[in-house]
Amino acid sequence: MRIELPVNAERFGSNLFYAVQKVFELDGGIDTDDAFSNPFHVVRKISAEELFAIERDMAVIIPIKDERLRLLEGVLCGIPHACFPIILSNSQREPIDRYRMEQAMVDNFCRFAKKKYAMFHQRSADLAEVFKKGGYHDLLGEDGLVRNGKAEGMIAAIVLARLLGKKYIGFIDADNFFPGSVLEYVRLFSAGFSQAKTEYSMVRVQWHSKPKIIDSELFFARLGRVTRITNQFVNQLLSLHTGFESDIILTGNAGEHAMSMDLALALDYSSGFSVETNHFVNMLEKFGGVLPTTHPEVMRNGVEVFQMQSRNPHFHEATKGDDHLKEMIEGSLSVLYHSPLCPETLKKEILHELKRHKIISASKKEPTNPRRYPSLSKMNFEKAAKVLDWEKHSNMPNV
Amino acid sequence: MRIELPVNAERFGSNLFYAVQKVFELDGGIDTDDAFSNPFHVVRKISAEELFAIERDMAVIIPIKDERLRLLEGVLCGIPHACFPIILSNSQREPIDRYRMEQAMVDNFCRFAKKKYAMFHQRSADLAEVFKKGGYHDLLGEDGLVRNGKAEGMIAAIVLARLLGKKYIGFIDADNFFPGSVLEYVRLFSAGFSQAKTEYSMVRVQWHSKPKIIDSELFFARLGRVTRITNQFVNQLLSLHTGFESDIILTGNAGEHAMSMDLALALDYSSGFSVETNHFVNMLEKFGGVLPTTHPEVMRNGVEVFQMQSRNPHFHEATKGDDHLKEMIEGSLSVLYHSPLCPETLKKEILHELKRHKIISASKKEPTNPRRYPSLSKMNFEKAAKVLDWEKHSNMPNV
Repeated sequence: MRIELPVNAERFGSNLFYAVQKVFELDGGIDTDDAFSNPFHVVRKISAEELFAIERDMAVIIPIKDERLRLLEGVLCGIPHACFPIILSNSQREPIDRYRMEQAMVDNFCRFAKKKYAMFHQRSADLAEVFKKGGYHDLLGEDGLVRNGKAEGMIAAIVLARLLGKKYIGFIDADNFFPGSVLEYVRLFSAGFSQAKTEYSMVRVQWHSKPKIIDSELFFARLGRVTRITNQFVNQLLSLHTGFESDIILTGNAGEHAMSMDLALALDYSSGFSVETNHFVNMLEKFGGVLPTTHPEVMRNGVEVFQMQSRNPHFHEATKGDDHLKEMIEGSLSVLYHSPLCPETLKKEILHELKRHKIISASKKEPTNPRRYPSLSKMNFEKAAKVLDWEKHSNMPNV
Repeated sequence: MRIELPVNAERFGSNLFYAVQKVFELDGGIDTDDAFSNPFHVVRKISAEELFAIERDMAVIIPIKDERLRLLEGVLCGIPHACFPIILSNSQREPIDRYRMEQAMVDNFCRFAKKKYAMFHQRSADLAEVFKKGGYHDLLGEDGLVRNGKAEGMIAAIVLARLLGKKYIGFIDADNFFPGSVLEYVRLFSAGFSQAKTEYSMVRVQWHSKPKIIDSELFFARLGRVTRITNQFVNQLLSLHTGFESDIILTGNAGEHAMSMDLALALDYSSGFSVETNHFVNMLEKFGGVLPTTHPEVMRNGVEVFQMQSRNPHFHEATKGDDHLKEMIEGSLSVLYHSPLCPETLKKEILHELKRHKIISASKKEPTNPRRYPSLSKMNFEKAAKVLDWEKHSNMPNV
C-alpha cells in the first residue's frame, strides 16, 4: 500500500489527531524501494510484511443483524487471511432461525477457505456468562443476557478479541457489496497502526464516496448528511478549546474503524448510534488534560488517531430510512452535548440544530443522554476466559 | 489469494479450457500453510510471493477513449505496484486536448505514487513509426497511422509490452468505478498464470455480477446479454466438434483478460468487438488439430485457458446504448460464423439469431466479416525498438 503522509495534526492534551491520509496504491509492491528512504518524500510505502505483521494480531469484528447471507460471505472473502474474524450476530432466531443459517454458511465457507473464525449470538447464554464471570455486569440486561444494540455487540466482541489475545480490533459492517472494499478497509487499519508511535492508537476510515441512485443515475456523494453534521460539531468542540478553528476531524461517525486493544480497554463506551462519535469525546475527556484523568499511563504515552481516506466507494445495502438518520444525528450530537467539556454556547447550537431539523421536539430541554458503559479495564479476563467454550463457537479446538 | 481448483477441463486439440474457478479469499495470507500441502484439498492458496513474481513481468494495458480522468486515476491506484501500466489512449485532441489532460494527470499521479508508466496516443506518429520500422504494416491505415479501434489499440500495446520485455499482458478497462476490482482482476491474472504448465496461457475473468439500476433499485445481474449469447455459440462450436455437449466457456467476451506474451505473439487478431471472442476461435483454428497449424511449437507445448470468477461486482460507467450491444453481438458471432471450423448447421443458427434480434437486416446473406490482423510473430522487434523514445512516453529514462 502507498499512502500519503498526514499533512498536519491537531493536538488536544495527549491526543494527536492526524489529518486525513489518501491512498495512492492499494498494493505497494513487495520490493523495498530506495526512493522511499528519501526523507522528503510525502508518499509512504507500507510493505506487505508490515501489513501482515499487524493483521496477524488483528481481530476483525463483523456485527450482523438479519443481513443477507451472500453479503456476509463476500465480507469474509475480503478479510485478509491473517486476520481473525469474529462474527457477532443479533439476527432473529424465530420463526426462521437466521442465526443458524449464518452459522452454517460461515462454517462451510471457512472450511473451504481454511479460514479461522469465531461466531457468537449476542443474546446467547454463553456470551452472557463471560460477562457475569468477568464481573462486568453493566452490559447485561434484566434478563441476564447481553443487551440489544450494535454498540453492545461491539463491546462484547472487544472482550472476545481480548480473550483471543489480539492486539488490534477492527470493525467492518456486514452489508458491504464489495469484498474489495472490505480488504481495503482492513489494509487501511493496518497501514494506520503501522505508523503509530504509541500503543494507544485508533484508525478511522473516511469513505471515498458513497454511490447513490438519483433519477436512475449514479451519484457519488462525498459525505453523508449525518457525517457532515457530526464532523462540524466535533471540530467545533475541538476549536473552542484550542482557540484555533479546525476542520481536521472528517470521521466523526466512522463505522469502519479500528483500535489498539490497549486503547479499546481504556475507553468508556456509549450505546446506540453515538458509539463512534463518543470515541472522540471520550478521548478528549480522558486524555485531553482538561478534566482529571483516570489513565495516567495513557496520558504519558499519548494517543494517536489516524484518519484514512479509502480509495473505493462505499457501496452497501441502503434500505434504512430517514428515522435511522435522525436517530444517528441525535445520538452523535447528544454525547457532545452531555460531555462536561461542552461549553454552553456549543450546547445551545446543538440544541438549535436538533430542533431545526425536527430531530427532537421543540419542547424538549435536551437530547436524550445515551446509556454509558465504563471502561473494560475493570473486567477480570482470566475468570471470563475459563467459561468460554471456543470449540462450540468457532472452528478452532479449545486451547 | 485462495482460489478453488478447476473442477474439470475440456480439451480441443492442444487447447485445454479449464472450468471457472472461484475466489475464496482476496488475500490468502503470507504464511505457508501446511494444510494446503494436502493433495486432496480443492482450494489452493497462491502465495503473495508467487503473485508478485508474475506481476513483476506483467504489463497492464489500459485502453482509454475520452473516459473520465478520475476513473483512470482510480484504475491506476488499483494496479499492483509491480505491474507496468501502459495507457493506450485514443481520446480526442481537439477542440479540447483530452489526451494532454490525461498525460498531465497520469504523470502527476505516478510522480506521487512513484509508479512507472508508459503512455501513447494511438494516432501518434511515434507509435506508427514502431510498426513501420518493425515491418508490420497491417495495423496502419491509409494516413500512415495506427488504425482507430480498441482492438487495434490492444495490438499496439502488446507490441509495446514486448519491447519492454514483459512476459505477460493483462487488459483492464479504464471506466471502472472500483479500484479494488482492478486490483482483483490483476491478481486473478497472476493467480491464473501461476497455475500454468505451459508458456502459452490465457486468463479470462468472469464478472461476479454487474450491478444495474432497475426502478431506482440495484439489481446484480449475473451475465450480460452479449456474454450469454456469445458463450452459447462458442460452446456449441466446441460441442459440435467434440461430440459432447459442453457449457465450459463462460468468458466468451471477457474484456478483462490476460495472455502470456508467447501466446499473444502466436495469435491472429480481429478488429472491433469481436477481438475477445476471436481469441477462442483462433486458438481452436490454430492449435485444435483440425486445421493445419502454423505453430507446431505451440501445439507441442499446449495452450491453457483459465477462467476466473471475480469476487467483486463489475461496476463501470454504462453510458453506451443498445446499438453498442448489437455491434458486440454481431462482432462476436461473426468470427464464429466466418471460421473454417464452423459447421453449416451452426452458421444457420448464428444467422437466425442475428436476424431474430434484428442485429442484421433480414436481407443480409451473412454477418460482416471483421478486419483481420496476422500474428505479430512476423514483426521485427529489434528494428521497432530502435525508433522508440521511451523518455517521451513514460517516466523512465531511455535504456
